[in-house]
Formats: sequence, structure tokens, C-alpha cells
Amino acid sequence: MTRLLIQNCNVLSVPDANTVAVRENQDIVIEGAQIAALLPSGQADVGHFDEIIPADGLLAMPGLINTHAHTPMVLFRGLAEDVPLAVWFNEYIWPLENNLIEEDVFWGMSLGIAEMLRAGVTTVNDHYFHMHQAAEAVKQAGSRALLGWAVFSSGGTDLLERSAAFVEEWQDSAEGRIHTILAPHAPYTCSDEFLRMCADLATSLNTGIHIHASENHEQTRVSLAKYGKTPVQVLEAAGILDRPTILAHACGVTPEDISLIANYGATVAHCPKTYMKLAMDIAPVAALRAAGVPVGIGTDGAVSNNTMNLWEVLRIMALAQKEITREAEALPLAETLYIATRGSAKTLGMENEIGALEPGYLADIALLDLSGMHHQPVHNVAANLVYNMEMADVRTVLVNGKVLMRDRQLLTINERDVVAYAASARERLSRRLPQHRIQTYAP
Amino acid sequence: MTRLLIQNCNVLSVPDANTVAVRENQDIVIEGAQIAALLPSGQADVGHFDEIIPADGLLAMPGLINTHAHTPMVLFRGLAEDVPLAVWFNEYIWPLENNLIEEDVFWGMSLGIAEMLRAGVTTVNDHYFHMHQAAEAVKQAGSRALLGWAVFSSGGTDLLERSAAFVEEWQDSAEGRIHTILAPHAPYTCSDEFLRMCADLATSLNTGIHIHASENHEQTRVSLAKYGKTPVQVLEAAGILDRPTILAHACGVTPEDISLIANYGATVAHCPKTYMKLAMDIAPVAALRAAGVPVGIGTDGAVSNNTMNLWEVLRIMALAQKEITREAEALPLAETLYIATRGSAKTLGMENEIGALEPGYLADIALLDLSGMHHQPVHNVAANLVYNMEMADVRTVLVNGKVLMRDRQLLTINERDVVAYAASARERLSRRLPQHRIQTYAP
Repeated sequence: MTRLLIQNCNVLSVPDANTVAVRENQDIVIEGAQIAALLPSGQADVGHFDEIIPADGLLAMPGLINTHAHTPMVLFRGLAEDVPLAVWFNEYIWPLENNLIEEDVFWGMSLGIAEMLRAGVTTVNDHYFHMHQAAEAVKQAGSRALLGWAVFSSGGTDLLERSAAFVEEWQDSAEGRIHTILAPHAPYTCSDEFLRMCADLATSLNTGIHIHASENHEQTRVSLAKYGKTPVQVLEAAGILDRPTILAHACGVTPEDISLIANYGATVAHCPKTYMKLAMDIAPVAALRAAGVPVGIGTDGAVSNNTMNLWEVLRIMALAQKEITREAEALPLAETLYIATRGSAKTLGMENEIGALEPGYLADIALLDLSGMHHQPVHNVAANLVYNMEMADVRTVLVNGKVLMRDRQLLTINERDVVAYAASARERLSRRLPQHRIQTYAP
Repeated sequence: MTRLLIQNCNVLSVPDANTVAVRENQDIVIEGAQIAALLPSGQADVGHFDEIIPADGLLAMPGLINTHAHTPMVLFRGLAEDVPLAVWFNEYIWPLENNLIEEDVFWGMSLGIAEMLRAGVTTVNDHYFHMHQAAEAVKQAGSRALLGWAVFSSGGTDLLERSAAFVEEWQDSAEGRIHTILAPHAPYTCSDEFLRMCADLATSLNTGIHIHASENHEQTRVSLAKYGKTPVQVLEAAGILDRPTILAHACGVTPEDISLIANYGATVAHCPKTYMKLAMDIAPVAALRAAGVPVGIGTDGAVSNNTMNLWEVLRIMALAQKEITREAEALPLAETLYIATRGSAKTLGMENEIGALEPGYLADIALLDLSGMHHQPVHNVAANLVYNMEMADVRTVLVNGKVLMRDRQLLTINERDVVAYAASARERLSRRLPQHRIQTYAP
């Protein structure tokens, strides 16, 4: 078992939503994939380690957790700007995705993981197509992922068999870094019967479900008019909520929906840069959390969020909650950092494995350099983390006890190859024939 | 006269609010402080130049213009988090500013300019205290600034004499890089009589006025109840609007105020990260622009904005306007970039000098590297500029024809000295005695 020592860092601790602490001058002892101990610097016998990472003055924190993404969509970024949700889907995204070939998903996933590692993001919950290619990219990159193969009921039940085969092939693979989940797209693209089949399949495979739900109040109104049920109630009726469920967005939820989500123990992935960009409703994070619903942060795809930089999402979450509640006290620093760490881990059901730097947790660690001019002077580390972070402040990143980025050099992804693929595919990927779309948005 | 060649860059052009163009493979010829010519690469005789800056693959754009800041407040950043405006002023900012000594302003300004240059920001319109120290920092740094010494009527009319002396000493100094302006704080901290004296002084000095106005709808309501006039009407009645006036914020303006601002030719500095952070109202950028009011972007101080990174302000402006208007088409890419360039220049009355890369304009230039993973593949340069930029993407910065940052190395500011000063002053600056405040907020 490899033994690794991160030497003399300061360690961020966010034990609950009211507390941020920094323990100074710590050594982090890593054995295999796990954190074995945190010790005051100088106590560990340096002769015992296979590798020592000097970290003087750096801040160690849990790698960030992206709770909702369509990572390979980085290949399309910049192609759908300044358009509302229905146009975005019907005239841009779904016609563009008609261009997608399997190989694109491997390279797009690799590109997005490279960008995420550079931002200190170590885990992603991804919902996309051709997911065996995404899994291969995660396997090679060394990062952590929860992967679900997106399905619509219009594709027929064959899709469910393929999803099941994907789960069986990849569950707990890549030294345990890859977990799988079922990923029906949304109540408005999946029939009740199809959702019921997904729920049953999830039971038989013992997986959870990752689904878009209640993306805005319009979807809720339309759903109530058509079915007499909100999108969340549709999911309940189909048995989806009986499984561990991650709801992406939940922007259009009613107070009753919030109770329902809380009672079933479902969680919410929150992607506020997307909501503002597409002029959607902004999910009521405070109300969800007050009801006990775990909330995590996500980038969504890069055709709405434009980047995979989760730091920016974090601060936009806090800013947007302050704005919509008209309370500057909303989403204070500690709660915001809690959501970024333990909250996001809990959203994925991984709160005992990631989201904290403690003995027994997996060694998914970002080492941050706060010496940049935009952080000086450091009166308040928590404020710097929420409001000042730049991707370039992330120096070194470990996942599962392995160094994936050292001093801003990626060790497992060949960025030149990734960029060359993206450049060569750019023109093909940007063609749009709206009549050739993979799906139609009509909530 | 020094001749400088930026060789083989791509040049951003935003001629109006509907058009973004990139001219590829251009050489920029700089003579003294000005851009002399843009030529297709290879046409210039390289033997004629004192310095050649290779810029293959880099994007040249006008240096960003920060239209409203209190730059030296970087020294206090992180000290006033998660509090509403009145508490922010009365319990934090004004007690903290009681700690300020003259020397702090030189070092705080230097720190903030360093941060801005690293973000490609070349001009700042600054509103603060001890401005001879700020001017000295700008002079030494080589950047461009419009500087006004903040005054309250509670300080008495001596302050106006000092403002006048500052204007007379520094107007058009530092090779023309420093301009000055009068800076009464706000209608709620300056009596009508004091505002009238400021307006008269501005006339006699032939300067403009930079003032906070209508920061939220509450100020407008209170002003109407007290005086029967909105804050903008108060400024009109005092003769302020007869001078070229830059209004910071204008978040609480009425439709009549907007007409008034437009009719007088006043301009608006927009700082949306601050508005969201303090749960304030967000200024109606679309309505202001529709009325013909020039709008520019600003960071405000770093105790509300937390950084001086104007790229982030730019995208938050677009995102917030989409959200408050519920129109994803609001503030499209071209208009957003127009506001960042010519719009911000016009806000400061400098539209014939800065904000565009054309012959005759001052050579204030940022060279950007869009090769980072977070930009790839580049389908749409305008989208990348608005939504993806990181400070670290800014490679090289020139102001007034001189290189101030080359390949991310600052040439005119000793960052080690600046950081050392900030660290040594940190504890002193963070002491708060609310009874010792420089002013009280009671709109």
C-alpha cells in the first residue's frame, strides 16, 4: 500500500453549517486511497513514506464535488447563447447532440475532467450518453464519478437494458472510483410507465436515480394542468422517490414538493449559473435546507454554465440566494462552504467517504494557494474561498490517494491530445439541423 | 518617441452593441502612448521598433475599465460578510475606516492596481480618501485613473478646499494618465447646500462629479418622504447634474429618474456583484441603456465585491439582467462586451481615448490567452470572454504604450512589498469600535 505525506499544510474543516475552522501546520498521512491521520507537522517519520508533498502555506480542503453535470457537453460550449430554455433545447442542444458520436464522449469527458481537476473538482455526478466512454475517461484520468446513462421514453425500453448493462459492467469499478446510477431524463421526457420501469430496475440493480425535475415553475404549472400532479408528485407516483434519488434543479417546487422531497430523503443538485443564464427560476436553497433536504452544487453542462469551474457556481449560489430572499444574511460563508463539502457529498449519498479531510475518508484533496493578490490580505479564509477563488489558485489535486495534478501540471490526462481532438471535431459538432433533434422540449 | 510592435495577435473589435468581430493575425503599431496602426501581420518593418511583443494566438482587447471603485479597501476585504447595507456601513465599513492612515491608501491602491492589472483592468475611477496617496500609487504603477477625494458634508467645507487642491495638483498628471474629479459621497451624506458648493466648485475647476446615488429603492422612498424628491432629483436641484456626472449604482431609480439622467447626459456605473452580495436592488441596465444612458461596469470596493476582477462583474451583470428581466435574451454577448469596452469608456467621458483598439486611441491593451481547458474548444470568442475568463488568462498588459505586466510578471509594482505591508497592517486595520465611525448611515 502506497504511503504519502502532505507536509505542513493548513487544513480546512467545516464540521457543520455554522462552523469553519482552519487547523494550521498539519501533516496529512495517506495510506492507499484513504486519509490515515492528520498530525501536527513534524510528528510523522518521513522515512515511512513513498512520496512527500511539501505544502507550506497551502490550504488543504476536500476536493470539490460536482453534483450535476453533463461533462462531455464542454465540446459544445458557446454554441447556445442568449436564448430561453425551450429554444435552447429545441433549436440548439438537441439538434447539436444529433452530431454526437461515441468517441466524442470519451474526449469531451476527458476535457471536462481536465478542467475540473484544474479547478479542484475531484468528483462528478454525470448524466449523459454513451457512458461507457465517459467511464473509460474517468478510469484513465484517475478521478471519481457517479455515472448515469441518460434515457428518454421515446427511445424505447431497449435503453433500459443498455443502462442496466452499463451499471453491471461499471458499478464500483476503477479501484472503486466509479459508481453508477440510473438516469431517466425528466418527467417531461419520460412517461409514467417508463419511470416506473426505471424505479423497478433501480431496485433490482440496487442503484439510485439521477433525474431532472421541476426545472422551473412553468413545468410545475403545465404538469399540474396535464396530470393534476407536480413533477415531484409524478416521480413519487411512479415509485422513483422510493429509490435514493438526486433531483437536478428543483427550481419550480411547491412547499408541498419540498416536504415530499424531504420525507423521501431525496436530494437536490443546485446549478445557479445555469438558472440565471437561462432566466429560469432559482431554487429555494434556504427552504430546501430548512426542510432537511441535502443540497449540493453543480455546474450542469457547459452549454449553459459555460465552464466547469465549481468555485464560480458556489459564489453565485450564495449571491443569488441573498438576492432572491432579499436577505444579505442568507447563505452565510459557513453554510455555503458546508454545501460545497459535506452537503454535496451527502447529495450523492457519499457523506461517509468524501467531503471532509478526516481519518477514514478517501484522500480526495485540493491544495490551494491563497497568496495571489486577489486574496491579500487574508482577513477571512472562508470569505476568500467563497468569493475570491480563481481556478489557478488550485495547485495540487489528489484523488483516491493519487496525485492527479501537481503544481498545475496534470499527470494523467494528455491535454494536448484532448485539445487537438476538440479542435478537429469543432466544425462537425457545431452543425445544427433543427429538424434532426434527438428529442423535443414540450413540457 | 518609443515605438513598440505587438506581433501577430488577433484583435477584438466591438464597434457597437450588436457587433463583435475578431480580426486575425494583426500587428499593432504603438508610437508613444498611442496606437498608430493595425496592420496584417508581416507588413511592419520590424527594424523600426524599440520593442517587439510576440503575441501569436493571443487575443488583444482594450484594457478593462473599472468605472466605480474604492480600490484601497482591498485592505479590508473579508471583514464585512453576510450583513445588510445599514449594518455593513454602520457596524463595519465606517468603523473600520476609522483605522485608516494616509500610508494605507498608497499601499492599498498599489495592491488593488496589482490585482486589476493581473485581471487586465487598466483604468479605474476611484472614490476614496487621502487621494494624493492613491495618485502617487497610480503614478508609480503606470496605470490610468480618474481620482476623486470622497467628502461628506459632516466634514465641513474645508474638505472642499482640500478636494480643489487635489484637483489642481494632480489633474492631467503622470503623462496624462491621471485625471481628477470631485467626489461628494451621496445625497444622504451631503446636504443640499454642500452639494450646491460641490457643483459650483466643479464648474470653477472644470471637472466632473462622481457620486453614489439611489443605491436602492429604500433610499428613494426615504428621500421622497423627507424631501419630496428622489435622490436623483435632489442632485438635479443642487446643480450636480449640470456637471458631467457619474452616478454609482442608480439601483433605486424611477422611470422619471431615468429620463432625468438621460436628459442631463449623466452616466451610470454598475456594480452587480455588490448588489447581490448586499441583497440590494439591481439597477435596470436595459432600461437605462434604452433611454440612452451610458452604463459602465465597476467592482465597487473589495469589502462588498471581494475582488477587483472585473471579468466576474461583467458576467454577473449579464446573468443578473437575464434573471431580473426573466428574458434570457437580455444583455446578449455583444452588448455585454460593448458595455465592458466603449460603454465603460463613455461612462467616464473617455470614449475617444480608451475602450477600443484603433489608431489614435491610447495603447491600453490586454493580451489574453484563450488556450486554457476552460475555453476549449473555442466555438465563440464572445461567449468565452463574457462567461469563461479567469484572471490568469490575461498574459500581458500595456497602459499608455508601456508594458506593465509581461507574461504575468508585474514590472512596476513590487508585489512582495505590497503584501508585506498588507500583512503588517492587517491586525490594526481589522479593529472595530462601532462608536468610532467616520459617518453614520441613516438615509
